[in-house]
Amino acid sequence: MTDDRYAARRLRALEAAEAAGLAGLLVSPGPDLAYLTAYTPLPLERLTLLVLTPSIDPTLVVPTLERPLAERAAGARGPVSLRDWRDGTDDPYAIVAGMLGPGRYAVTDRTWASHLLELERAAPERSFVASGEALPLLRAVKDPDEIERLRVVAHAADAAFADVISLPFTGRAEAEVAAELDRLLREHGHERVDFTIVGSGPNAASGHHEPGERRIEPGDAVVMDFGGMRDDYCSDITRTVFVGEPTDEERDVYAIVRAAQQAAFEAVRPGVAAEDVDRAARVVITDAGYGERFVHRTGHGIGLEVHEPPYIVEGNATPLEPGMTFSDEPGIYLEGRFGVRIEDQVVVTPEGAERLNDATRELTIVA
Amino acid sequence: MTDDRYAARRLRALEAAEAAGLAGLLVSPGPDLAYLTAYTPLPLERLTLLVLTPSIDPTLVVPTLERPLAERAAGARGPVSLRDWRDGTDDPYAIVAGMLGPGRYAVTDRTWASHLLELERAAPERSFVASGEALPLLRAVKDPDEIERLRVVAHAADAAFADVISLPFTGRAEAEVAAELDRLLREHGHERVDFTIVGSGPNAASGHHEPGERRIEPGDAVVMDFGGMRDDYCSDITRTVFVGEPTDEERDVYAIVRAAQQAAFEAVRPGVAAEDVDRAARVVITDAGYGERFVHRTGHGIGLEVHEPPYIVEGNATPLEPGMTFSDEPGIYLEGRFGVRIEDQVVVTPEGAERLNDATRELTIVA
Repeated sequence: MTDDRYAARRLRALEAAEAAGLAGLLVSPGPDLAYLTAYTPLPLERLTLLVLTPSIDPTLVVPTLERPLAERAAGARGPVSLRDWRDGTDDPYAIVAGMLGPGRYAVTDRTWASHLLELERAAPERSFVASGEALPLLRAVKDPDEIERLRVVAHAADAAFADVISLPFTGRAEAEVAAELDRLLREHGHERVDFTIVGSGPNAASGHHEPGERRIEPGDAVVMDFGGMRDDYCSDITRTVFVGEPTDEERDVYAIVRAAQQAAFEAVRPGVAAEDVDRAARVVITDAGYGERFVHRTGHGIGLEVHEPPYIVEGNATPLEPGMTFSDEPGIYLEGRFGVRIEDQVVVTPEGAERLNDATRELTIVA
Repeated sequence: MTDDRYAARRLRALEAAEAAGLAGLLVSPGPDLAYLTAYTPLPLERLTLLVLTPSIDPTLVVPTLERPLAERAAGARGPVSLRDWRDGTDDPYAIVAGMLGPGRYAVTDRTWASHLLELERAAPERSFVASGEALPLLRAVKDPDEIERLRVVAHAADAAFADVISLPFTGRAEAEVAAELDRLLREHGHERVDFTIVGSGPNAASGHHEPGERRIEPGDAVVMDFGGMRDDYCSDITRTVFVGEPTDEERDVYAIVRAAQQAAFEAVRPGVAAEDVDRAARVVITDAGYGERFVHRTGHGIGLEVHEPPYIVEGNATPLEPGMTFSDEPGIYLEGRFGVRIEDQVVVTPEGAERLNDATRELTIVA
């Protein structure tokens, strides 16, 4: 990516901050910093913070130890000044406070509380707000290059699913299937695997189940929710398969979840509120009598982070825009018995929406 | 580990909080929550928070979606109540605020700023302080089981170093050596690799260099700083090797860093202030004329996190206690030329200190 692109993103972030009545933006290591400077240090206890405020050049405050690394990444991407501070000598919070005029500043959601509390102490007359609240859409609209990366990594996850269902499930521990998914994701080009949820039988009713030693049995539903990262962008897909012939009730629940997932997909187009997409899925499940068993929102944005705005949830009136990318993942969970979730990533297009995943959503029976 | 052990840790944390004048402790996903409940969810945007305050049972606030997982981990470990909240319906911050009497609460350092800001809003008459500041020693004193795990993972890192120096360095990219270290750490029992810094030639002068495409040449110094996790506990070791015969200056600098590392090690014993260990290393390097080139603190605690209290840094008067574990890692960095760092993990014993790493600190020449 060109330096211009990063400079343009910083400019856009500042404009959005001003439009939101903010005096500036304080960006911690993580996806926001990567997005704005291409600098990706580990978020640790030493303060690293990009200060974006109209009155000064973009300035990255970094530990002296990491200055060479920051220079190479952020410093090389257009005009970013570096201000380093040394262990035991300098107070990095006072350094930041000295750059901040009066007003309200957005801070990256993932900023450590320990850093925020020190900033609040060092800059008592300024106030702070989470950037996810004040500027939720900073990274929400993806450019064509970002969408292409999301498509590539989504297809890699699809390929892992296509492979895993040809393997036997019966008698294997959930953790073994999870390890298989990890291997397949990497084989299909993931550079990092973030999660490989495999919940079988009653564990399929636990949304974020941690795969364990339970052996998969004939008659189980198996929820597999897995993803990772390639070229900095994330994948996240869920499919539910059945070990042998499902019961009538399982077929019904599967069909309801699939219809809800499709209804949400069809609701997506520019101008529609995020919460209306949630409602489109929820009404299908509620009308079928399972409303109480759909215990989570319909989706979350995806990009440099696996969960990011826009959240597809009741109460979020954000109008969708072309280029926004998020998950469509309704589910029904019958505690102690079984569960079904189906998840694709979708991108808003000028006309409606396009799925980034193309793994089959047909009811799939495995061995 | 027994449930009693977790309950005892929670009791100890509450006692420490009361002694520090705190009304309680708010614990976010991450090492502190793992330490106190054995529950290890991903830290994400949905609030998960353990509320420890004398007036109520330990209560874990969790998203409904993750309640089954939380029940199995934390709920199974002695008396922890669960309070779940649902997307789009409940305000988790109001739920937490309702549990908090007046006073000052410690919050885990790594709590997301977005969560803290919402808590500050929902509980305006309470105040918050970072647990790393208010209760820095919560996990600092390790029990014999923890020390044994740290020893085992340290020895696994030592074994990776012993293997890597038998391989050729000349002509290989830093990133290739880094990949080799990753492989060797896993081969010797690491479940996760967190970092594999390989800085060669001028890059050896960059403390936290990211290994890249630079080919290693005869005459290079190569700083390797690597570590990961096994059985929940972290490794972190640094060695500097030379490709072919080092210059006299390189030999001198290596000898100075080694002497400084030894001086810090010999300064460690119960009752000594953390900053005095830093001074013991620093005086050796300063007297040799390189004080300005030792740009970081001497060390950091290690345990469930790779960096945690106690920090071995000027200004930290914490008296060392038996069972504390931390790094001893002075370095000298000559910008644009070369650098040397030597790092071991050490544990404070009743009589003094013991190294957890035993990889050679002799000047090592590689091919």
